[in-house]
Amino acid sequence: MKLSWIAGAALFSATGLAQTFQRLGGCPELGCIFPPDQADFLAGQFFDIRLEVHSPVNGSEAREGEPDPNFTFSIKKKGRHSKPQKATDFFEVEEPELEEWDFTWYEDLFARDAEKPSLVKVTSKAYRRVALFQPGEYEATLTYYDGQKTTATWLVRDLAEVRKAKNVVMFIGDGMTTNMITAARLIAHRSVNGKYQTKMQMDKFPVLGHQMTHSLDSFMTDSANSATSLYTGHKTAVNALGVYRDSSKSPFDDPKIETIAEIFHRIYPDAGIGIVSTAFLADATPAALTAHTKDRGEYGHVVDTFYQGMTNYSWTEWDGPDVLFGGGAENFLPSESHKGQDYYKLFADKGYSVSWNNTALAEAPNDAKALGVFCTGVMAKWLDRNIYTDNLKKQKNHPDGTDKDAEDQPGLKEMTLKAIDVLNTRKGEEGWFLMSEAASIDKQMHALDYDRALGELLELDDAIRATVEKLRSLKKLDDTLIVVTSDHGHGFDVMGSVDTKYLNAQKTDREKREAIGVYEMSGLSQYTMQTEGSFHYSEGVHFPAQWDPRYSLFAGVTANPDRRENYQVHKDGPRTPAVELEEGSDNYYVNYKDAVSGFVVNGTLSVAESQGVHSLTDVPVFAMGPCQEEFGGVYNNIDVFFNIAKCLGLGRGKPDGKFTIDV
Amino acid sequence: MKLSWIAGAALFSATGLAQTFQRLGGCPELGCIFPPDQADFLAGQFFDIRLEVHSPVNGSEAREGEPDPNFTFSIKKKGRHSKPQKATDFFEVEEPELEEWDFTWYEDLFARDAEKPSLVKVTSKAYRRVALFQPGEYEATLTYYDGQKTTATWLVRDLAEVRKAKNVVMFIGDGMTTNMITAARLIAHRSVNGKYQTKMQMDKFPVLGHQMTHSLDSFMTDSANSATSLYTGHKTAVNALGVYRDSSKSPFDDPKIETIAEIFHRIYPDAGIGIVSTAFLADATPAALTAHTKDRGEYGHVVDTFYQGMTNYSWTEWDGPDVLFGGGAENFLPSESHKGQDYYKLFADKGYSVSWNNTALAEAPNDAKALGVFCTGVMAKWLDRNIYTDNLKKQKNHPDGTDKDAEDQPGLKEMTLKAIDVLNTRKGEEGWFLMSEAASIDKQMHALDYDRALGELLELDDAIRATVEKLRSLKKLDDTLIVVTSDHGHGFDVMGSVDTKYLNAQKTDREKREAIGVYEMSGLSQYTMQTEGSFHYSEGVHFPAQWDPRYSLFAGVTANPDRRENYQVHKDGPRTPAVELEEGSDNYYVNYKDAVSGFVVNGTLSVAESQGVHSLTDVPVFAMGPCQEEFGGVYNNIDVFFNIAKCLGLGRGKPDGKFTIDV
Repeated sequence: MKLSWIAGAALFSATGLAQTFQRLGGCPELGCIFPPDQADFLAGQFFDIRLEVHSPVNGSEAREGEPDPNFTFSIKKKGRHSKPQKATDFFEVEEPELEEWDFTWYEDLFARDAEKPSLVKVTSKAYRRVALFQPGEYEATLTYYDGQKTTATWLVRDLAEVRKAKNVVMFIGDGMTTNMITAARLIAHRSVNGKYQTKMQMDKFPVLGHQMTHSLDSFMTDSANSATSLYTGHKTAVNALGVYRDSSKSPFDDPKIETIAEIFHRIYPDAGIGIVSTAFLADATPAALTAHTKDRGEYGHVVDTFYQGMTNYSWTEWDGPDVLFGGGAENFLPSESHKGQDYYKLFADKGYSVSWNNTALAEAPNDAKALGVFCTGVMAKWLDRNIYTDNLKKQKNHPDGTDKDAEDQPGLKEMTLKAIDVLNTRKGEEGWFLMSEAASIDKQMHALDYDRALGELLELDDAIRATVEKLRSLKKLDDTLIVVTSDHGHGFDVMGSVDTKYLNAQKTDREKREAIGVYEMSGLSQYTMQTEGSFHYSEGVHFPAQWDPRYSLFAGVTANPDRRENYQVHKDGPRTPAVELEEGSDNYYVNYKDAVSGFVVNGTLSVAESQGVHSLTDVPVFAMGPCQEEFGGVYNNIDVFFNIAKCLGLGRGKPDGKFTIDV
Repeated sequence: MKLSWIAGAALFSATGLAQTFQRLGGCPELGCIFPPDQADFLAGQFFDIRLEVHSPVNGSEAREGEPDPNFTFSIKKKGRHSKPQKATDFFEVEEPELEEWDFTWYEDLFARDAEKPSLVKVTSKAYRRVALFQPGEYEATLTYYDGQKTTATWLVRDLAEVRKAKNVVMFIGDGMTTNMITAARLIAHRSVNGKYQTKMQMDKFPVLGHQMTHSLDSFMTDSANSATSLYTGHKTAVNALGVYRDSSKSPFDDPKIETIAEIFHRIYPDAGIGIVSTAFLADATPAALTAHTKDRGEYGHVVDTFYQGMTNYSWTEWDGPDVLFGGGAENFLPSESHKGQDYYKLFADKGYSVSWNNTALAEAPNDAKALGVFCTGVMAKWLDRNIYTDNLKKQKNHPDGTDKDAEDQPGLKEMTLKAIDVLNTRKGEEGWFLMSEAASIDKQMHALDYDRALGELLELDDAIRATVEKLRSLKKLDDTLIVVTSDHGHGFDVMGSVDTKYLNAQKTDREKREAIGVYEMSGLSQYTMQTEGSFHYSEGVHFPAQWDPRYSLFAGVTANPDRRENYQVHKDGPRTPAVELEEGSDNYYVNYKDAVSGFVVNGTLSVAESQGVHSLTDVPVFAMGPCQEEFGGVYNNIDVFFNIAKCLGLGRGKPDGKFTIDV
């Protein structure tokens, strides 16, 4: 399956309208500066600088011969009387060594089909671990090829040295949009004559905003890219975690940016950090808090950065989070881990409690650092854990690496509440930062399994509700900022209802489409109706009372692979809408086993895509607590980072004690 | 073409899970009260009450025999010591006469196919033009069939007798969603390395909210239904304007609800009202301000209510708005108008200036009431008025009813600014209410013509920007509440880009899909790039610099008819994606003339649907000015009415002078 959301090579157009296919994102000219033009910085935030000079052998900006090895780089703070300084003087660092390499790219799809790549020779330097402390605008200038210039304007945001929130809980509904929240409300909350009798917890948040998710070099983002924006305040490229992507081969030498977790830990060494996800822990959204690599696929490396931070060269002090809960045991086990190490043992040796199931999680001590790894791969979905529980069997996904099934997995709520117990017990005085991710909203939307995706969203809302109650009972609600947001969208919406009984009784594909009801024929939601055999939940907890009503949701996304649709819940486990016609052919067509009573719909995506894809839409931000007013209106995803950093007082005008650790 | 969004009969399910097919929306039992249970009221708002008792001959709630003619109806205000009173005593009105009729409906699609309708015999009464003045909860009880009861709980919102805003501008982007705003920003506003260099005017509004659009009897709404919610605070059924839908045949005897325009005019008789739309003026969104009918298709009636309000029986004093600008000349001309009257003459006789084109509009006096009708049918789209102007020819749509072309049509900005000039000149002291609708965002989304829809959205944003500047220059910005919202969504989103050059060079449908680029292959927007022949706009005005770039938007909606896609702008005029296989067959398939270089995609909608349909998503609300803080967070669409009414001080605790006009 072509995972273009984990795919590599960036391409470039020969038309001169060099937009869709880029030689190198963030570098339209032959001289490249990273961080690029228009970058914003938190005062005192550490970052690396990467300079590149290109000499493409062909392509629209072709320049024959060798790239300039004698380029120079200067920086000045804008303002009267200010003069450019050599970077070495400006940052008081030594001149880095010159690096050289080549890379190739395709000008467009025609060049790709013809297998005619363009060669680029590169000279480069990297300045490591620098920082800007004075708020204001800076001008960085790269001079090459006898006077050709690339300039970047950088903005250091205003100082924020006063801490307004003791704790921060950042919930990320991966891939969650307003459309999905609307649909989840419809199937889980009862409405009488157009008035909902209960509300989503998100709906009760006092402040609503929208954030723009587009990335540095593409208007579409993936979860690595957008998590980097949310955690560092810097937009980057697809697959990049905590770095800007340079053109060198190494996934570990790209220019890094300090993350919210690293900054908070540097300035408040005694404060707590928690990381919770229903994905495998090496997946992009949890990974981006500590990892620095352009390749989100470096899973072993990611787990090692949770354990001890960056190691290939000095970056910042990091000794592991207080809480790390999720799936992905394979990256902790010697079989697939970084250097074949046993990370269960390494974490345990550092004093972590290690839990492999929900029972052990509940019993784990609240006064010790806690690692919880509950399965291999992605964790089980709410719908399978709670309704179709047979799907937990025959998974051979036990976190100990044996062929046993991980049948006792916690949900996002259990993991998040336990994380708060540990953080509050250990760091009740110093405060803490917790990121909790509902990862499978995105993963199930990719699979076009809307029931499971909405189940994950409702579990997120239930976890938020329980978190608010928990913090209130701990008397910590007033000094805790709670932010609920997303990293990107999927083009999902609901357009009406489907009479599944009628659909299943029709013979032809065109007749089956007559079962689709829109406008007044949509009627009201049957998912909330209490009938014989329907499901009940405890007070204040809201999930559908039935998942397979006669009149189901007519839902869809805006881009699909070929598939068959019958609009009924997939009781046998997560959906696989398309399969390869021949193994390895990258040619996907309707999965003949999926939705067999339905009708076939051809997709619009490349036939090499087996799943749905991300979408452009702005995503919602719900905020409550100290600094909540900062999150209203419409803004960029990087502002989520700046708002949280400001609320924690992390924008510092001068180096603090931690600045002087050995480099 | 099956216009299910203008279709009639409501249906009902025999399963007992009576949801999707309803005998009568808002009435799950055999006794019906309109306004129904859970209805909210503005204090002092006029409304009618309709009671019905049903005796269906079959169906899940079957009751043989005749409906009860001796039903009784009582009301009590909840609270200690309060007792139910007969409605006639409570409202001090005479007992209405008993009405009787029959209607039929289908239990489900099987019954429809078998042509086996269910018969319902009805006894009914209607109490006209009553009001509730005391805030709090009321209990209305209908007693029938010897003691069977249907009760409705009504809530009268808190008094709002203090006026905080002098003027209100209510912009409605019909069908506009957050996803569309995101896409419009991408094609019209330049971004450098992920940072937009300019903003949408909507993005600059200080307060953002979401409103839920679902209707009374279906979770999907149409524009009549939702406009009624936005203007009256009461949710109703598809196609209903300013009324709840009863089961009688007449489109004019349904229980009415007083609209924001009627209430504002009643309480402030000297204040101004303006109505502007790019649709035909009899269309739902403008119509719902004055019309009261369950059938939005009663266009002649709608225009007559603009002229003189309800006439079939007394409702409220109304002598026409100060401003009425839009399309739909056919409903003003004797050929198609109400009772064949010449409404141009009727309005002129009342002292209205009458404009038929943009030139005349600019020259119309600001001190007289103004009617502007600029074409037959829907007005021309921004894209055709500004870029592909040849499409204005051969339309035979001149507002005088001849076969001439209406080539000099104003845009939403010109109409809105002129409306403000007239309202401010005539009612600068007393204040005014203006509704301005960008109607073809919705109409072009229905047609899957995303370029035209986004052009209309950008024109709306340009109109909002110009309105803010205009009010600032008039020194009226501080006492004017500006609300920008929508009435419902379409499941639209953008997922990447399309290399149209590559797509057009491929031979097979599956090969053409390879031209779709997602994630990092999406690249950056080419629509904003200034190249030879690209378009330029005046300072602060933002539209695409080119509409037909090589790398176009990969956009789509979540439910389609069969169609062909090549992802290029339709230069020859608005798109028609599907056509009937045989005339009158209600069997739609790909329009062989549309997007000929593209690939065919079959839809998921009923083959009787020729277009896309509305979607469920919550829609955004942007607010600025007095009371802006009321519009943050997540709420129901009816709260937009209550917030505006509260800001204008229209919630009154006792009858005012206007209450005593002859009934």
